[in-house]
Formats: sequence, structure tokens, C-alpha cells
Amino acid sequence: MTGLQPLLEPKSVAIIGASERENSLGRTLVANMVGAKFHGKIYPINPKSPTILGLPAYSSVLDIPGDVDLAVIATPAATVPAIIRECARKKIPCTIVISSGFKEVGEEGEKLEAEVLSIAKESGMRILGPNCLGCMNPHIGLNATFAAGCGLKGNIAFISQSGALCTAVLDWSFERELGFSAFVSLGSMSDIEWGDLIEYLGNDPKTDAVIMYMETIGNAETFLKAVAKVAMRKPLCVIKAGRTQAAAKAAASHTGSLAGSDDVFSAAMRQTGVLRVATIDELSEVALWLSKQPIPKGSHLTIVTNAGGPGVLATDAAALAGAELTELSKDAIASLSKVLPAAWSHGNPIDVLGDADAKRYVEAIAKALEEPSTDGLLVILTPQDMTDSTGTARALVERVKQCKKPLLASWMGGATVAEGKEILKKAGIPLFDYPDNAAHAFAMLSDHHKHLQVLAKSEQEHHSLPESVKIELEKQIRVASQSGAKILSESTSKEILHSAGIPVVRNLLATSAKEAAAVAQNIGYPVVLKLHSSTVTHKTDVGGVKLHLKDEAAVLKAYQEIEESVTKMVGKSAFEGVAVQQMVSMKGVEVILGSSVDPQWGPVILFGAGGELVEVYKDRSLGLPPLNRVVARQMIEDTKIVQVLKGARGRKPVSIDALVDLLVKFSLFIDALPMIAECDINPLLVSSEGFIALDARIVLKDTPRI
Amino acid sequence: MTGLQPLLEPKSVAIIGASERENSLGRTLVANMVGAKFHGKIYPINPKSPTILGLPAYSSVLDIPGDVDLAVIATPAATVPAIIRECARKKIPCTIVISSGFKEVGEEGEKLEAEVLSIAKESGMRILGPNCLGCMNPHIGLNATFAAGCGLKGNIAFISQSGALCTAVLDWSFERELGFSAFVSLGSMSDIEWGDLIEYLGNDPKTDAVIMYMETIGNAETFLKAVAKVAMRKPLCVIKAGRTQAAAKAAASHTGSLAGSDDVFSAAMRQTGVLRVATIDELSEVALWLSKQPIPKGSHLTIVTNAGGPGVLATDAAALAGAELTELSKDAIASLSKVLPAAWSHGNPIDVLGDADAKRYVEAIAKALEEPSTDGLLVILTPQDMTDSTGTARALVERVKQCKKPLLASWMGGATVAEGKEILKKAGIPLFDYPDNAAHAFAMLSDHHKHLQVLAKSEQEHHSLPESVKIELEKQIRVASQSGAKILSESTSKEILHSAGIPVVRNLLATSAKEAAAVAQNIGYPVVLKLHSSTVTHKTDVGGVKLHLKDEAAVLKAYQEIEESVTKMVGKSAFEGVAVQQMVSMKGVEVILGSSVDPQWGPVILFGAGGELVEVYKDRSLGLPPLNRVVARQMIEDTKIVQVLKGARGRKPVSIDALVDLLVKFSLFIDALPMIAECDINPLLVSSEGFIALDARIVLKDTPRI
Repeated sequence: MTGLQPLLEPKSVAIIGASERENSLGRTLVANMVGAKFHGKIYPINPKSPTILGLPAYSSVLDIPGDVDLAVIATPAATVPAIIRECARKKIPCTIVISSGFKEVGEEGEKLEAEVLSIAKESGMRILGPNCLGCMNPHIGLNATFAAGCGLKGNIAFISQSGALCTAVLDWSFERELGFSAFVSLGSMSDIEWGDLIEYLGNDPKTDAVIMYMETIGNAETFLKAVAKVAMRKPLCVIKAGRTQAAAKAAASHTGSLAGSDDVFSAAMRQTGVLRVATIDELSEVALWLSKQPIPKGSHLTIVTNAGGPGVLATDAAALAGAELTELSKDAIASLSKVLPAAWSHGNPIDVLGDADAKRYVEAIAKALEEPSTDGLLVILTPQDMTDSTGTARALVERVKQCKKPLLASWMGGATVAEGKEILKKAGIPLFDYPDNAAHAFAMLSDHHKHLQVLAKSEQEHHSLPESVKIELEKQIRVASQSGAKILSESTSKEILHSAGIPVVRNLLATSAKEAAAVAQNIGYPVVLKLHSSTVTHKTDVGGVKLHLKDEAAVLKAYQEIEESVTKMVGKSAFEGVAVQQMVSMKGVEVILGSSVDPQWGPVILFGAGGELVEVYKDRSLGLPPLNRVVARQMIEDTKIVQVLKGARGRKPVSIDALVDLLVKFSLFIDALPMIAECDINPLLVSSEGFIALDARIVLKDTPRI
Repeated sequence: MTGLQPLLEPKSVAIIGASERENSLGRTLVANMVGAKFHGKIYPINPKSPTILGLPAYSSVLDIPGDVDLAVIATPAATVPAIIRECARKKIPCTIVISSGFKEVGEEGEKLEAEVLSIAKESGMRILGPNCLGCMNPHIGLNATFAAGCGLKGNIAFISQSGALCTAVLDWSFERELGFSAFVSLGSMSDIEWGDLIEYLGNDPKTDAVIMYMETIGNAETFLKAVAKVAMRKPLCVIKAGRTQAAAKAAASHTGSLAGSDDVFSAAMRQTGVLRVATIDELSEVALWLSKQPIPKGSHLTIVTNAGGPGVLATDAAALAGAELTELSKDAIASLSKVLPAAWSHGNPIDVLGDADAKRYVEAIAKALEEPSTDGLLVILTPQDMTDSTGTARALVERVKQCKKPLLASWMGGATVAEGKEILKKAGIPLFDYPDNAAHAFAMLSDHHKHLQVLAKSEQEHHSLPESVKIELEKQIRVASQSGAKILSESTSKEILHSAGIPVVRNLLATSAKEAAAVAQNIGYPVVLKLHSSTVTHKTDVGGVKLHLKDEAAVLKAYQEIEESVTKMVGKSAFEGVAVQQMVSMKGVEVILGSSVDPQWGPVILFGAGGELVEVYKDRSLGLPPLNRVVARQMIEDTKIVQVLKGARGRKPVSIDALVDLLVKFSLFIDALPMIAECDINPLLVSSEGFIALDARIVLKDTPRI
């Protein structure tokens, strides 16, 4: 229950600040509601005027005889708290604060905003804005905005944190005949935010897809919860501004909020099944597609074209974005050959040749659609000597009325093909300026569908760290942090990971030969002894390293030898005991497994290529804990190093299943222990024989919450 | 001298196959010439009709009283050889063969095409086509095509291998008011090809930029020669179809030609200063830009916007494509603050706020243009409550008449901003659908400018292998290839590279202790001795490796020890002598330096990260030999491993200058010896101490041309 029904499906709307003054905001708001033919009641509020644009006006919401679902406020910021108080008394469940002059103008505005929010919270009122354009629901004639005109009826919900982008998108939507089920400007997002709207729209039967322009995520937790409920049922698509550092600066100066790390944002979207697009072009292509056509159920595109070049460019674009051309069956080629001239391409793209008329086009399209492996069809038309752009469009529209697969078109050129374009547009076939754009959009959406299918497998999974393990780990961390140190030693870090079930090369200190032997017994033979010294850095040079120690006698002897050699070469004080370490002879690939805390999203798990080149190739992927097996596997698959793990160049392959388990286990450890700020296992050595952490470090938060 | 003046600036044109029949090609051709108001004489050729569309017709070109510069042939393929023969007798210097039915239809057509070419060659006639749309020069009213209408006059030359794309681009150019200096459909490219046209257009004063749609490169040598003459003076921009394997298949079925390797193509374009774009969107953006604005001279973009969100998206796009936002000076901020409301962004993007009118916009633009570090200005307008789209466009146009820097605009939305868009278009300001597209185009072109500046430095450089070295190398290769082996041994390969001046770990065979000592003397101490055996693979296990041999005595002893040990452990026959190898103690980074032969471009040099991960990260760059220092440096800089070479993570930096020398030297070696098919130096060990090839292999071509 998000309580947003009164916002998007109100039966009665009060407009506070309603006015008849030319060019005033208050007049635009009333005129927009009237112009959109709102299905409910409109109550203009104006203490000085008995009517506004012919509607009876009231001097306060309290004077309205019946119930009010939604109040729209467009008066100066300073007046808003008092108005909200009246709305609360009237028990109005939702208000839209159009007015600006709050958080974005500094301290004074912040105070006003806090006051408004506190009144609203007390009465359970939900607020959209402040500093927003408002919202629309074309299906009930609701245009509670000051935009120029109400959107068309349709199945796309558009939510935007930029009011300006709202008006531009609206304007563009008329041109493309794109219709909306909801159109919401979030403004400062002081109360109603992403999670609320996504959840509401997920349950709205008129909404088939949600398209979002985002500057800040707001409350990440409610966002994730809402998305988890909706993403599998309805496509969610987002463009996020502030991808680069330069852009983050621009965003900060715009919204007064900090943009989170962009890579974490991308990882969060991928993990939760939200399609993130990179450009406004892509956003509008996806919106256009989803407003008219189903999402492709596979990655095989079939192209029918009257020109080779554009077909090749579309093929390139599809392949580069991960789709592929349908391999035509022999039967399909034979049946196409019956309707096409001998010189046709005999393959996909199906080149119907430059002199193709409408009949030939449509016959080829019909045959192409019969091919069962086709997941989508792109029709390309270029104006050539014999081309009948309009007739082909008309025949195509007639033919595909029965078609259940996505159908796209690119009528290339200007005036010559304009009439054909208009026919396709009216018939709900998405038109792309260029065929490579269309192929790219197909690839993007079919990839998204495939990704959702993968994620769907994980829905039933639930994991968590056993309570007893958690208690033991908390105890270890409490002991380790007693000294006040935030950065735990390698030895301590490894012991904690060991307790969490992560295989580590254990590394314990001993200050006597006897203790060293006891530790070795605990760790297991063979072991290595290394000088422990805060002054000597090159331990080998002073005889401080002894390898391959197979039993107690060897350890006792080695301890003595190290002590003697160090004392002789650099003095007694340099010898502070030894570190006893498991001897690792396994050879493998070095990877990194770690975690850090993102200010926006909380803990983040990182997996990738380790070793020296990690910063050069930045071959890593991110995920939010706790990971389930599906997400952990995808994180591994998203790196390039996975090719080596799987056995490139004759290597014995690593068990990816076991590595998935390890990632899940590590993520449960991180998820259960919120006092950990950072944990790095680098390198983690992986081979066909197993995994082992060679080095590790845990960093605690400043105020451990134990 | 390309001899193309009669093609693109003819004074008289004969149209063979001219006709008055409705919808016939012959009628369209004559009508197009008449309709475009050709500045010269038009001679329709039709044996049956005394006039065509009011012009006197002739039964053969031989009957035309005066000279003919250009003949356009649109008769069936079978008739073309006889017509070409007549044209040759008439001494017509250029013909366009519009007709199809040649190479693309199989053997019969191939014969016809060969006949046509042989006649043309004999008489020195140049042929455009066959199977093409023809060509246009709007400046002289030449429309020798069957397209619908003649292009507008302008400064862009467009060349296309797809006739269909020609008509689509033409149609689109009217809509965008983009004008052409030449418009050429290459068709099958049997005679006139890329190199001819680029060279001609390079010298054409009406052409400022050349935009190309390419399917096959044709003669790579003439292309490279022409580009070398033009690229520094006029922007050359290409879209190449067939980027992916799937697409290459489509291309092959279209043109009957094989597409070369795409990476080599990209490298060749980069090396020669041709801007390669990836999508039709990018191609049209570049064309639009260059038709109206200068190329940006630097990478600093300034954005003026009335909305934050679109500004941030543009900032993202600029940064991701390598440009950056101008850092506004204190003076600029102060002077902007004088004309803008207090809430303006106080930075770049310059947010003039949602209620900006035309005056405020233009004042901000004026101040922004005063900032000397601005290399380009993007004005974004979104339709908001107070926005005056039309007035702002008008005022902007007025203001920027004096502006010498590139100026772009994005008037977002549809009908509301349509009038403003029209005004900007007429005034020659490139309009982008979305601001991120504009920023991307800015980044792409400013990067191209920067790249050309780098390439310009290399123009005066000339390198070649000394003749004596070349003769010595040819001799070595002749000796090595006498056995008939194409793959030379490691030892032989290294000796050849050594002679070419490439530092290698030398590796020579010896079959007696005395010989081993002599070889060691030649190579230089210390050395390593390794068993030479065709049966034993694990040489260490049989005592077959001796390291750190410092003098003759050590070598003699080691030889004896290896022989004894091997004989004892695996039998006498396993001992076939030893390899004497320089002892390398240097530690460094493993890179790869190699060459191979591309069927289209000939020899190609490869440089990149070596070792095991080379195929995972594919971190390499390509270049065509001979490399000059500038190109060699860019190849190194284009890899990621260069960060490690330059001293990432506290490493001592490698001398990039010396590495550049090595690449140049290697490329001269490859360039001078065309009998080499492949050469791999992998790994090449590089460190601050120097470089050395640890392993190498040379593969000869099947028929060495010695």
C-alpha cells in the first residue's frame, strides 16, 4: 500500500492558488484540468474570486463541501505550511507542491520544507514535490501540471526528476503518438519517491512499462524493494544523469544532492532487473518500442530491406549489441525464392532488391514471419526508383495485424517517405530514423529479456549466515577492535575470514620455538616460517624465511636458525618472533574478492582479476549483498578473467560452481556484519584444485555497531 | 591528375538511353538534368526520336556536333560494350554506367564488365559504375542520376557505395538544409574508386569535407596515397559497413567482394587521419556539423541551458567521449552573475533557469563566448512555462553572426519548439535532437582535430632500412628457406631479428663442448645451456638445464654434465647437443610485437600486452608499416599496458622513446622484406633497463619473393 491512488486516480482535485490572471501559473493549472476533461470534480481555491474560469471557487479547502482526494499547491513557498495544515485538517490524502523556494534555495527553504513534511507526516498525507511540474493520468483526464497540454492515453508510465525533461518528452510524445498511463514530475522528492511510484505503477493495470529519468536514487532500500516486486512483470527502464565526475558536479549544483558511484548504480540496476540506458536516444527508443510492441522473446532478428548497405549496417549494429540475425531455414529460403526475383540475397538480411514494389515487400515479410526462429522483424525501406513508400507501408500495416512478434520499421529519408511513415506511426509500428538504431534497440531489449529470465531463476533462493557463526564472528571482531585499531592485521583478518568459512592461508605469530610448533600443528603441515620484525623488510636477506617445513622437528630447527641468523646479522632487537604460515604449492589465477560501503547503496561486493594488472584493465564486477547464486554467477560471468578460469589456453578449468558458493558465502559474511567498512581478499588464488586467500585485510567502520 | 573533371564539372553531357516513356530511367535522367538547370549542353541519345523532352536528340554520340565531356549510359548491360566503343571513338573522357547486369550477376556479367574496362583503358576513358545511381554537382546544375531531385548547393562531398543510401541521404539533406559540392554513387567501382575521388575532391575549392559510406576499400594503395594528400586539409569521415562477422557475410552477398579485417581498417583510418564513425546517426551528425560550422579547435565545451537535467546528460556524453566542460574563470562567473538571477548554477553548464526569456539567454551566451578557453558552445532549450523558443532562436541567430567558434543547439521537444528550430536551421546552426547527441558530436570532432594535430607532426619524417642491412637479411632468409620450411626455427628467427637490430636473447645450437664455448663467446657471458632434444620435453628433470655460466670453463663442464646426465637417465640418443642462450636476469613487463599480412592492406604491425592474458584482454593496437615515430608512439599510447610501462604502482618507468624506436625499426624490417608472412616477438621483455625478445618466430610466405 503506497497510498498513491488519490494522487494518480483522484475523484476530486483542489487547486490552491487558482487564478484568472493571464499567463499565471494558477490559471494554467485550472485550464489544464478543464482542458483535459477531468473525470472528477475540480475545486479552484481563491479567497478573492467567486469563480475561476467558470468554476465555483472557494476561499479555503476547508470550505469545500465534499471530500478532496488531491490538492495542488502553487502559492509562494512561505504560504505553503499554513495551506498544508488546512489540507491536513480537511483530511486530504495527497498534495502536489508545485511551488519552488524550498531546500534548493538554502537554509530558509530547508526549514519551510521540514515544517511541511512534519505536518504531512503527522496526518499521513503524501506529498509530491516540492518544485515539480505535477503529474498526469490521461486515462481519467487528470492534468495536474502546468505543462502545455495533457499527454495521450497509453501504457507507458514516465517518471522524471527534471521538470524540464518532462515538458520536452511530452512535446516529443505527441509527435511520435506515444501515450501514457502516468506522467510524474518528482521535483525535490521530499516525500513521494521512486519506490512509492514503482510499487504503485507495478499494480496499475493501465501501465505496461515504467520509464525513468533519475538524478538521485533517494532511499535505496525502498527503491530496491519496489523494483524486486515489479521488474519481473513490467519492463523498468532508467536513464541516470551524472555518470561521470564532471557530470556529478553539475548534478550537485542542481539538486544539492550527491550522486552515488556510477558503477555501483549500474550493478544495482543489473542485479534487480532494471534496464539502464545511456542516452536520451536510447530512452526514447525503448519508450517508443514498449508503447507499441512486445519485448522480443529471443535474440534473432530478421531484416527485410530493398537495399544492401542499410541492411549491413543494421546487421553490424545488432551483432555489436549482442543480437544475431536469424539463420533462415532451407524451407524459408525456398519459399522466399518463390516470391522474390532470382537475384535476391538468399539469406538474412532478405534483400528484396531496389525495384521491389509493395506486393513483393509484403510477400517477403509474410514468409519471414513464418520462420519460427524469428524473434523480431525489421523492415527497411529506402526510396529508390520504383519504390512505393506509401503503398508498402499500407500493405505492411494490413499484413501484420495478426503478428505477435515485435515489428520495427525504418523508412529512410525525408519528404519522399513521409506519408508512409505517418501510416506506420498511426498503426503502432515503431519507426526508427535509421536501421542501425532499430537493430540496436532490438538487441538491447532482447538482451534485457534474456537477463530477466536468468534473474527469474533466483527468485526462490534465500540464504543467510547461521546465527551461531554470526555470534562467533561478532565476538572475534569485538576482541580485534578493542585496541581501537580500525585496520585489522593480516593475521587477524584471515582468522576472521577462516571462521566465516573462507579458505585462507593462515598466518599466526609465535614467539617461541615451542609455540611455533604448536601453531604449525594447528594450521597443518607443511608450513613456512617467516621472521616477524617491525624493522627488517627484506626478510630473505637476513635468513628470515624457511620453506617446506614438514614436521615439528623441522619447525623447531628453523625457528632457532632464524633467531640466530637475524641476531647475528642485524641484532637481537630485530627478532620479534616468527609468523607461521601454511605452505601453498598450488598454482592458479589471482583474483580479487572484496567489499566496500557505498554512501548510497551500503555494502558492495567486488569480484575481478587480481594481481598487478587489476588497475590497468579494471576487469571487475559489482553486486549488492546478500548475493544469491544467480547474481554471484553473473558477476563472475561479467568479467573477462572468467575465460581464463574456464580453461583458456589449455588450463584445467576452475569449478565456477564452487566459486559461486564462495562469493555467496562471502556476501553473507559481509551482509551479516555491518561493522565492516572494507574487506579485501587480494589475491585469492583459484585453480582446479581449489581456492585460497593469500592475503586479506579487514577495515572496520569508525563506530563499530556491535 | 585524376582526370575526373569531366565527370564532376562537365560542359556537355550525352545521355544514352534517353527516352520520353513515362517512368522510364531514360526519361528520369534527362528530366533530372533539365530540372537541375545544367549550366552546359545536354545531348539525349535515342535513335528513334528526333527530340526528347524538347531537346534535340541524336541517334549516336558520334552524331553530336561538338565535344562531349561526359556520357551517361542507361541501356541494358549487353549493349554497353558497343556504346562504350562509340564513346571512345568520340573521345569522351568520362562515362557513367548506370546499368546493372555486370559483375554482380555472375560469369556472363563479369565478361561484359571486363570488355567495357578494356575498351575504356585503351582509350584512357574513366568510368563511374556500373550499377550506380550516378553523380551530382549542384553548383553547376549537374544531376546525372535517377534520384528524385538534385541536392542543394553546399560544401559537403558525399560518396557512397550504396545507391539506396544515396537516395535516403539526399532526401534527408533537404529536410536538414544540408548542401553538397559533389554527390557520387560508386556502384561496382570497376574503374573510378575511392582514391580517385578523394584526390579530386581534395583539390576542389567548393569541397570542405568528404563524407563516405564504404563497403569495400578497393585499391588500398591508391586510397592511402589520396588520403595522405587530403586528410590534413579537409575532414574525411567514413562509415564502413561489415564491421562484424555476421555483417561481413551480408556484405559479401551484396557486393561479391570480401571485407577486410575490421580492426585493421580502423587502424588504417586512424593512422591516416580519417574519422571513422560507427552509426548512421554519427555520420549524419558529422555531415551536418561540417556543412555549417568549423571543426572545434579544442576539447572545452560550454553549455548554456534552461534546465539542469539535460545539461547533466550533455556533460556526461561529452566526458564519456573524451571532451570536457570549460572551467569558467572567476571573471566569467562574475560577469554572468550580472546578467543572471542569483540562483543560476555559477558554473558550467550555465543554467539560466526555467524562467529564462530570450534576453537572458542571449546575454548568458554572449558572456560564455567571451571566455577564451571555450572551444564550442551548446545551447539547450526545453519548453517551460515562460520559455520563448522562437524569440530565443531569433536572438541567438542575431547574436552569433560574429561568432567564429562552433555553435550547436538542441531545442528539445516537438511542435512547441518547431518554429525556433526552423529559424536556427535557416541560420546554419546545427540542431541536434538531444543535447547528449550534440555533446557527443563535439567530443568526436574535437578529438579528431587533436588527432590530426598529432599526425601533422609526422609529415616530414622519412625512414627506411639501410640497403646493406636489407641485402644481408635477404641473404639470411634465402639460406633459411632453402630447406623449404616456411616456419623458421626460434634460433633462426632470432638471428634474423638480431641482424635487423632487434635485441633478442640469442639461442644457438652446439653439438660439442668446444662449439658451445665458441658460441658462448660469440653471444657473450653469462649464458645458459639447455639440452637440445627432440624427445625430451621436461629438460630440468633430466639435468638438462645449467644456468649462470660465467666463463669458458663453466660452459665446458656444464656441457659434459648435461651429456652424462641425459645419457644416464634417458639414453644417449636423447642427447642431440645443447642450445646456448644468453642469461637474462632482467625483470620486466611482457609485451608482444608482431606482424601479419592482411589480404586488403598488406603487412600490419601489432603491439600490445603479452603473456597469458593477451587473448583475454585483447589489449593491442595495429599500424601499417613503415611506421613513423608519431604513429608508433600512438600505437603504444593506445594500449592500456602503457600505464604499467610508464611506471604504474611504483615501477621504474620504461623509456617510451626507446620503445618507439624499436617499433619503427621493426616496422622497417617488415616493410623491407615482403617475403615475411608473419613475425611474432612474444614475449618481448621491457623494463627500465632495456628490451629483449625472449621468444620469436618468423613465418615465410608460400612463394618467397627474393
